[in-house]
Amino acid sequence: MSLLQIQKDYSALQQLGYKLDLTRGKPSSQQLDLSVELLDLPGRSDFFADDKTDTRNYGGLQGLPEARRLFTNLLGAPQEQIVIGNNASLALMHDHVAFALLKGTCDSSEPWSKQGEIAFLCPVPGYDRHFKICEDYGIRMIPIRLQEDGPDMDEVERLVASDSSIKGMWCIPKYSNPTGTVYSDSVVERLAGMKTAANDFRIFWDNAYGVHHLTEEKISIANILERCAAKGNPNRAFVFASTSKITFAGAGLSAVAASKENIQWLLTRLTPRTIGPDKINQLRHVRFLKDEVGIAALMEKHRQLLAPKFQAVLDVFEAELSNLKDVSWTTPKGGYFISLDVASGCAKRVVALAKDAGVVLTPAGATHPYGKDPEDRTIRIAPSFPGLAEVQQAAKAVALCVRLAAEEKLQSK
Amino acid sequence: MSLLQIQKDYSALQQLGYKLDLTRGKPSSQQLDLSVELLDLPGRSDFFADDKTDTRNYGGLQGLPEARRLFTNLLGAPQEQIVIGNNASLALMHDHVAFALLKGTCDSSEPWSKQGEIAFLCPVPGYDRHFKICEDYGIRMIPIRLQEDGPDMDEVERLVASDSSIKGMWCIPKYSNPTGTVYSDSVVERLAGMKTAANDFRIFWDNAYGVHHLTEEKISIANILERCAAKGNPNRAFVFASTSKITFAGAGLSAVAASKENIQWLLTRLTPRTIGPDKINQLRHVRFLKDEVGIAALMEKHRQLLAPKFQAVLDVFEAELSNLKDVSWTTPKGGYFISLDVASGCAKRVVALAKDAGVVLTPAGATHPYGKDPEDRTIRIAPSFPGLAEVQQAAKAVALCVRLAAEEKLQSK
Repeated sequence: MSLLQIQKDYSALQQLGYKLDLTRGKPSSQQLDLSVELLDLPGRSDFFADDKTDTRNYGGLQGLPEARRLFTNLLGAPQEQIVIGNNASLALMHDHVAFALLKGTCDSSEPWSKQGEIAFLCPVPGYDRHFKICEDYGIRMIPIRLQEDGPDMDEVERLVASDSSIKGMWCIPKYSNPTGTVYSDSVVERLAGMKTAANDFRIFWDNAYGVHHLTEEKISIANILERCAAKGNPNRAFVFASTSKITFAGAGLSAVAASKENIQWLLTRLTPRTIGPDKINQLRHVRFLKDEVGIAALMEKHRQLLAPKFQAVLDVFEAELSNLKDVSWTTPKGGYFISLDVASGCAKRVVALAKDAGVVLTPAGATHPYGKDPEDRTIRIAPSFPGLAEVQQAAKAVALCVRLAAEEKLQSK
Repeated sequence: MSLLQIQKDYSALQQLGYKLDLTRGKPSSQQLDLSVELLDLPGRSDFFADDKTDTRNYGGLQGLPEARRLFTNLLGAPQEQIVIGNNASLALMHDHVAFALLKGTCDSSEPWSKQGEIAFLCPVPGYDRHFKICEDYGIRMIPIRLQEDGPDMDEVERLVASDSSIKGMWCIPKYSNPTGTVYSDSVVERLAGMKTAANDFRIFWDNAYGVHHLTEEKISIANILERCAAKGNPNRAFVFASTSKITFAGAGLSAVAASKENIQWLLTRLTPRTIGPDKINQLRHVRFLKDEVGIAALMEKHRQLLAPKFQAVLDVFEAELSNLKDVSWTTPKGGYFISLDVASGCAKRVVALAKDAGVVLTPAGATHPYGKDPEDRTIRIAPSFPGLAEVQQAAKAVALCVRLAAEEKLQSK
């Protein structure tokens, strides 16, 4: 099709006056409705935990045992090695970094902030909010290419072995944001066993999408905590999860699991900060979700709502973009995102074109440290929030913008 | 009475097998029952904020406008200058300190952690959890004697004027923990206007007991934010409050107010940490408390439950201790504590004696930085949690221990 024809189509698109938003991985109202029971729990008559704790009062720094039990499967750790936080696992991750900066980990000789410039490995494309924490605290970010089965482990092993300033690594091991990548057992094994120059190196294992399947295939991944322990590095990983995309995005529970020593460190760090988390919300979640069977049943309902939206995007991309050179996209089996790679140097232009046609996308570059995608290629597509018809409209609009940007580039050569 | 007779009474006390706890300022079950309606709010049908925000989803970093409005009177600031946090104002205070250490305040040339050793002024007796934050992060604590109308301002002014390492000061300006002290207008005026060598000096104004009256006299204090602004030091104070002792101790709302510039700083600091606080709990509180009239009515019910317990302790002390040399106690008009001063060098002994008679008290020294009361005199009495009869029993037991310790000391001379 000629540039002129595509431009004409784009003008027509602009006339439609769309107001669509594919920016953030927010659950839709229909998904939130699945947890409507939470809204009047625990009820007025029984607000006691299993051990008769009055959940309304102070205390319980580690979280109710029954709330911790809810997470044992998701986190791959016994309840003794789990701590429950308030509504955002991002806050837990942030606080772990802040605590390590101010006080050091349980294996640090000094606080991270007193060890000169430190660095984190950042698999790319990745999650902008992980990168933002590093950027904010001046932690140098080293991008690591994400491959089919996880980060480029040759590169990871080479870097951590020689550079003791590398203190951490962000990982979204399952249905990764935004590519949907699932870490292979071999990658997990190498992460657990690799030699690190820093003996207080930490993996931030953000298992945000552990039960968030989009297909019949319920993928499992290796247990990082077990593998680290087996390899003699028990304190290497912190594993995070939340119910933000299980129950309510803004009012769920967060949780972290780690070795006994790390959990002791964390509880010591949390003690000056709070007398305890919101235990009523923990009780609410236990009463509603019940156990991992309850969680799985709920996640199946999420899948029924989400899978058609992902399929709609994939169908449009297949129909409109499959013959385009240098354009590709992921086909995730879980999680909240599709990662779209356009021709080099075109991502910003596509996002700008989409915006001018009423379709807001995550800023190009957001998937990379410092918001800078060196190839300007990757665009994160988040189809969860709008309705199915709108997702389809938005995907078509995005596809047109991709074609327009590609044609513009061709003509400008 | 002879030492022998007191010892006999003490042995008899031990035989009673008490298990009483006067350690922490926890609301009683009866107090928590006053907010039973929160337990099934907001209900399944209406979970939207006034501006139609779906409170179940992500977002709303600063907190719902109607939740912020709930705090305007308590914090003495317009809703634009208020941020709502999750269930613990202690966490907000901790995070302010951590943020200042890692990044500096909006007036800092460098992060506090890069300015050498820093110090906080700590009015004593004071709140152990304030002191714990400083101790944990290696912030030197300088005790300041709390007088009838607030901290010794001559000393405060002298110190802050000459020592630029003094970056902060803890204040509980109303019904202070543990003395019940109320800061006079003149003290507030001097705090707001004093010259500080550090231009990033901050007052942590923990208005934990702002509406927690114990008498008919509802005391008001001067507005620190207004006074600081009037004196040309608009960024000097952060004002904290929570509903922990209004609704549920473990599942309330926390809030902070400050100048526009400070709030902008705080929101920038919070952005990497969280997408937003639990908005459903905010909605729950707005629906239940409604407004400041609703809060005042609820606090009156708390007072009906609390005042008799305080009176019981005061009556016992009056009857048993008023003829004892060097023993005195406060008569608070609000808050959660009575501060008991025993003869110098006797506080630890009293706490140990009480423990052996089945009455647990806050450790002696907890009211001072580093847990060290140089005179070993001050004991914090928290009568809120046990039932009235138990409070009376406990007070009698404590009084006996005070007399025994005093007599022991006399004999040993």
